[in-house]
Parts: sequence; C-alpha cells; structure tokens
Amino acid sequence: MNFRAMRKASIISIGNELLTGQTASTNASYLSERLLSIDIPVISSYTIGDDIDSIARVLKLASSDADLVLVTGGLGPTDDDLTRQAFAKFLGVKLKLENELLERIQDFFSRRDLQMPEKTKIQAYIPAGAKAVDNNLGTAPGIRAESKGKLFFSMPGVPLEMKQMFEESVFAELKRFAGKQTVVVLKLNCFGAGESAIADLVERASSPLKHTARMAVPLMKRGRNPLINCTAQYGVITLTIIATAEDKDKAQRIAKRCEKTLRNILGELIYGAGEQTLAEVVGTKLAQQKKTIAVAESCTGGTLAKLLTDIPGASRYFTYGWVTYSNTAKTSELGIEADLIEKHGAVSPETAEAMAKGARKRAGTDFAIGITGIAGPDGGSEQKPVGLVYISVDSDNGCETKHFTFAHNRDFIRLQAAQTALNMLRLKL
Amino acid sequence: MNFRAMRKASIISIGNELLTGQTASTNASYLSERLLSIDIPVISSYTIGDDIDSIARVLKLASSDADLVLVTGGLGPTDDDLTRQAFAKFLGVKLKLENELLERIQDFFSRRDLQMPEKTKIQAYIPAGAKAVDNNLGTAPGIRAESKGKLFFSMPGVPLEMKQMFEESVFAELKRFAGKQTVVVLKLNCFGAGESAIADLVERASSPLKHTARMAVPLMKRGRNPLINCTAQYGVITLTIIATAEDKDKAQRIAKRCEKTLRNILGELIYGAGEQTLAEVVGTKLAQQKKTIAVAESCTGGTLAKLLTDIPGASRYFTYGWVTYSNTAKTSELGIEADLIEKHGAVSPETAEAMAKGARKRAGTDFAIGITGIAGPDGGSEQKPVGLVYISVDSDNGCETKHFTFAHNRDFIRLQAAQTALNMLRLKL
Repeated sequence: MNFRAMRKASIISIGNELLTGQTASTNASYLSERLLSIDIPVISSYTIGDDIDSIARVLKLASSDADLVLVTGGLGPTDDDLTRQAFAKFLGVKLKLENELLERIQDFFSRRDLQMPEKTKIQAYIPAGAKAVDNNLGTAPGIRAESKGKLFFSMPGVPLEMKQMFEESVFAELKRFAGKQTVVVLKLNCFGAGESAIADLVERASSPLKHTARMAVPLMKRGRNPLINCTAQYGVITLTIIATAEDKDKAQRIAKRCEKTLRNILGELIYGAGEQTLAEVVGTKLAQQKKTIAVAESCTGGTLAKLLTDIPGASRYFTYGWVTYSNTAKTSELGIEADLIEKHGAVSPETAEAMAKGARKRAGTDFAIGITGIAGPDGGSEQKPVGLVYISVDSDNGCETKHFTFAHNRDFIRLQAAQTALNMLRLKL
Repeated sequence: MNFRAMRKASIISIGNELLTGQTASTNASYLSERLLSIDIPVISSYTIGDDIDSIARVLKLASSDADLVLVTGGLGPTDDDLTRQAFAKFLGVKLKLENELLERIQDFFSRRDLQMPEKTKIQAYIPAGAKAVDNNLGTAPGIRAESKGKLFFSMPGVPLEMKQMFEESVFAELKRFAGKQTVVVLKLNCFGAGESAIADLVERASSPLKHTARMAVPLMKRGRNPLINCTAQYGVITLTIIATAEDKDKAQRIAKRCEKTLRNILGELIYGAGEQTLAEVVGTKLAQQKKTIAVAESCTGGTLAKLLTDIPGASRYFTYGWVTYSNTAKTSELGIEADLIEKHGAVSPETAEAMAKGARKRAGTDFAIGITGIAGPDGGSEQKPVGLVYISVDSDNGCETKHFTFAHNRDFIRLQAAQTALNMLRLKL
C-alpha cells in the first residue's frame, strides 16, 4: 500500500434503526475520536438503511475521497443485515464460505451447549479476496478489504462488539496506516464545577499574560497549539489537550506543558486523566490506602453501589450496601430512630447523617456514605424541591453532610448525586 | 400496495465540526422524527465537511433514490460556508444576486444599528432558478430548489434557526408533498432469546405457508409490507414493524395484524412494546397487583436495585435492597448460615436461594430476588467460570433458582444478570 502524507477517513453507519431519529449512531463519534487520536481526520460520515444498492453506492462515494472507510452495522444473522452482500457487490466479487469461520461460529454455540441457528451460517461468508476480522464477543466476524489503493473495515453495529473489534484487531493497523505528522491527545477530567465556570477559570488565569511582552494567546483560543477542547457529560467536565508537532517527543512536551498549567489552575477540581471515572479513582485510592467503604442509599436506589462495583476488584474495599428506600428499611437496617425520621423528615441532613453513621457502624468500615433526596419527578414541595439531595460521609474524622440541588431529570439527579458522593469521598482520601 | 407511490427522503448535514466526533448532528435526528410524523421515511443521512465537490456529489447520490433532500449547514457568511456554491454546481446553474434578499439582510443590520459586514453579502446570492426561504432568526436565507422531479431544501446549521425555518416555511409544503401514503411503526421488545433464535422462530412459523396456494412471503423478507426489522441491545431484541398504506386505518390494520402474528409466534418472549424497558413492565405489574419486591445482590452490586428504582414511583413496590458483596454481609444482613456459604461457595444455587429467602423474610415482601455470580474479569475457575450467575426468585409459591452463563465483559454480565432477574420475576407476575 502506498503511504501518502495525510490519510483521510470516512465512516458509514448502517441500519434502518439509525434513520428514525430514535437510535443515535454513537459508533461514528467513537470512531471519529479514535481516528483523530492517531492523526486521521474524518472527512465524511454516512448513515444509511439496510439496502444492498444504497450501501454499495455509498461505499463507492466514501472511498472516492477518503483513503480509509470504516463501516459499522449490518453484519448480523437476520435478513435485514446486508452489509456483506453490499460489500461483495461494491468489490465486484461473490460471497465465499470460509470453513474456518464456520467452525469458529459453531464452536461459539457448542461451548454454550446451544445448537447453531441456521440463520447464523451467513456470518461465515465474506467477500472473495477479503479477510475476516476476529470478533471475540459475538459470532459476526468483521471484514477487511482493499480496493483501488483504499482500505475498508466492516465491523458489527453493536457498540460493545464494535469497540472491542476496533481496539483489538483494527486500531494497530490504522496507526501504521496514518501519516507522519504526530498528534498527542491528553484528557483531564474534572468534577465539582460547571463547564463555564471551568472555562472562566482557565481564561482568567491565562489573560494576565496578555499584558506581558509575550502577548500570549489565551489558552482556549481556537487554532492554538495545543488546542484545548472542553466537553461536559453528566457533571464530568473533560478538558482535551490536542498537541501537534513533527515528532512525538515534541508533541508530548507541548501537551505536558499545557497539562501542568491546567493542573496549576484547576487543582483539586481535576480528579483524573484519560478515560478514568470518579469511581475508578476513588476505588484505586481506597485499595492503595487499604480502606473500606459501605453505602446506604435512598433516592439513588443502588446507583452509588453500582458505580463502586462497576470497577473490577471492588470487593477489596466494598463489602456492604443498603438500598433503604422506605423509612422502615432505614430503621430496621441502619438502626435509625423512627423519631428522628419523623421529626426531621426522610429527606434531611439529620437522616443522611444517621444513614452514614448507621451504615458505618453496621458494616465496620473506614468510611460510609448516606444519601437521601428527592429524585422526582414527583414528591417535591416548596421547601424540599425535586433535586434536593443530602449526602453524608462518615469516618473517624467525623461526619460531613452537604446539601445540593441538582437539576434536569430523575436519571440525571440520581447519577449526579452518586457522583457527588464519590467526589466528597475522593477529597477525603 | 404500490411502493413507488411512497415518497422517501434523504438528509445531508454539512460542516467540518460535525466530523470530529464532538458535535453530534442533532439536526438529522430532529428532521428524521418530523418527517416520520408525516409518513415520509428517511432512507439515508449523510454528514460531510465544507467542500464544494463533496457536497455536490452527495446531493447527486442522495437524490438518486430519495424524492426529497433536506440539507442543513454551510449557509453562513464565512469562507468555509460552501453549500450555496455546491448547490449551484449540482444544479448546473450560476449563483444570482437577489436584490430583495440583499435589502432584507441590510435591513437586519440597520435595525440593530450595525453596518453589514462585507462578507454577509454572499448570503443574498442563491442558485439561479431556486427560491429563497425566509429566516426570521438570522441573516442566512434557506434555499428551495427542484430538479428532475426531486425537491430540495437547504437550511441553516444552527439548530435553533434550522428548526424555526423548517417549522415555519418548510413543513407545510412537505405535508402536501407526502401525498396520501401513511406509515405506522410498532415496536415489540423481547427478552430471553438471542437475535438469531428469534429470527429463526419467526421464519419457521411463516415458512409452512410457502406450501399453500397463497405462497406467502416470509415475514422478515426485505421489501415486504409490513417490513420487520430486528435489532439487539444488551439482550433486548426489538422487532420493528413498519406498515405502509394509502390511509392511516389501513396501515394500522396491517401493522396490528403483523403484531398479532408475532405475538402468537413469540408468546412470552415479548415483554413489552414501544420504548418500554423490562424494569418498567415489571414495575407496572407489581404496582397493579399491589405486590412488593426486595433484592439481595452480590455480583450485580446494586444494578438490579438501580434498574428497579430508575422508574418514577418505584417506592410503591420497592422498599429494601442489599448489596451483600462480602460473605460476612451475606451472613449478618440476610441471616445466611456461614456453614452454608462455606459448604457450597458464595457462588452457588444454595447461596442464591438463601439470599432470596433471607431478603424476603427480612423485608416482609411478596417477592425477593437473590443474585450471586462471577462478573469478572478475575475470580473465575474451570468449575465456576466468569459469567456464571445464579438467580433465585422467592415468593409464596416457592423459590425458583436458575443458573446462566453470560458472555462478554463485566458490564454486560452484570446488566444481563439484572435484566434476566427482572425477566424471571416478570414471568411470575
């Protein structure tokens, strides 16, 4: 294959369900970000239904100005999965049964004591001359093809399968496929302040420089190198530093210098880097310090326990959790006096504190968290509106209780409350 | 049914910023939903950068199989806004200055006591023979063009401006354009069997008809009316029925008949319709029957409690939950004999059963669920591999315990286990 200076990519998402406006194609944005991380810009992205002719036409169009075409979807076993047929049509070849693939698929079912459904056999066919790409999570193999100097990968549409295949079997080749310019991307994840507040902090810290002789460019200005992008998702603000240079070392130096500046400005607001979640950072700290945690949840109904136990190896520090949704459960499981709840209400700082203390006493852990609030949509009042949440963290150093008023909907309020609890714990570790 | 009568649409989103993976094109999904509401299905959606040749090529491709093409973006005043030039190129005409438009744009600025920037003048040009579409929120007018019997609208990319223009100046014409056809979409959600297994069941049930005089078309064949699409997400298999007819009643009848057939074939595998989740269906049934539920989770670590309490009003039936991650917690909170766990192991049918029974006894509920298993990635053995999960549902009718071996990763195993538990409970309600 002939390597040119700048390689460009196109992404094709296939599936009728993507065209009704109800299912978003998260695959395309995932792949765009990953390609950008290895210096391959995406110049077009197509979403089309399950139709052989349309898919073949779009493959032709996409490869007319891109060097690399990534396709997701349409590799399943049902009659509306037509990507492999369309690929064969586009390449001008027939589909060919690959016995090795068939064996692997049969094996997938027999290992689970299941009979292979007849329909699944189609997944053992790929266009003649193309190569199969391993799928370790499902039965549908991917397809790798080359045509007229262009490179094609076809992957499953299920995000989990697509990501695993992309990371394990596609990404390494694409890194080699990319050109010579290097880009270094660093991500800093913040929690505890909003997107504009963080952007303001960064801006204000960089503007005094304007008055010096150097007339520095504000940190977040477009077109600057490194470029800083700011995105927000469920309260986590991610600053992405994108540094470009002729070689990796130089790009790395530029990115690192910028990271240092941002860390100085934002301090404890930054909880982690890369793809780290709050629960991961908290879990690592707990494990390192050999500390344990118990949780007692009311309005979050298990969300905090789930976040903590999402992390492999959580049993090192997480042992007990209670979802005390009713007042009776708070009394019987955490030993909270019924009087206390009656006097202050189930949603009160006193109850949150009693939950945390009760949980810690019962579980015998170093830390315990109590959460009580109103997740909505109903149950709010003027004094205690939907979104009001009390969070207590109890430890040998005493019990800290804070109150918050989270906005948006039930899902957001619950997740935001659980994340905020993790953040309170993080700042104590 | 004459499929030719059906009007189909294509959507083109233009803008370099849409290709980095950070800005999603919400315009396309907005327009898809609006078009579907007037029975115009979207058959393709393209996202491309600001490049005249690419845009012109995609206009040609989109209109090759769609009757209507909606374009958003690239109408701004800066040098990277190239949609009107691309439109002229595609139509084979020149851009023409419209004096009336120029006056309106000048007026927009003078009403705000501003001088019109020179760059803005380009917005007064539209392809010769095309018509301008009013923009009441900004300066960029839209474009309406017809070519070879196809209809084109070009609108701004800013969602607020696009929506206002679409609703005020485009939608009414499209309603007339849609003509007489109507589309009815029904969704059936299944749980408890894989995608191929469900497709096989549907196929097998419809194939005997082949031998009758009618020679019926297999239910899932492409091009059939109604069309059945099959998608899978985290174990939920969704069958989407798309019925087309001259009037709503007939389309509704066709869809309903198909729904009935599928319900006959799939029976209890179908748990709900539309956007219903398993937790929602289970919650509704519990509330209707005035039954209560408690959960005791080990490997799912709160996932099941979270799914149940995701539903507003869950406090009507959900009161208690335990995350007994350690053996000590299983003993102290659920009253399970330490001997039992030692004899059979924490991951065993006996422990799952003891968890369910212990939880029900302690919480005094109608139902209780116990889940124990190995979510991985570590902790598996030859006898008890990662993915092995025991689920028990206890009630007055006794305790049912099942074992499963879920595949994929930790997240999937945990979610799949919690969903399967909900499904076991559903079948008892």
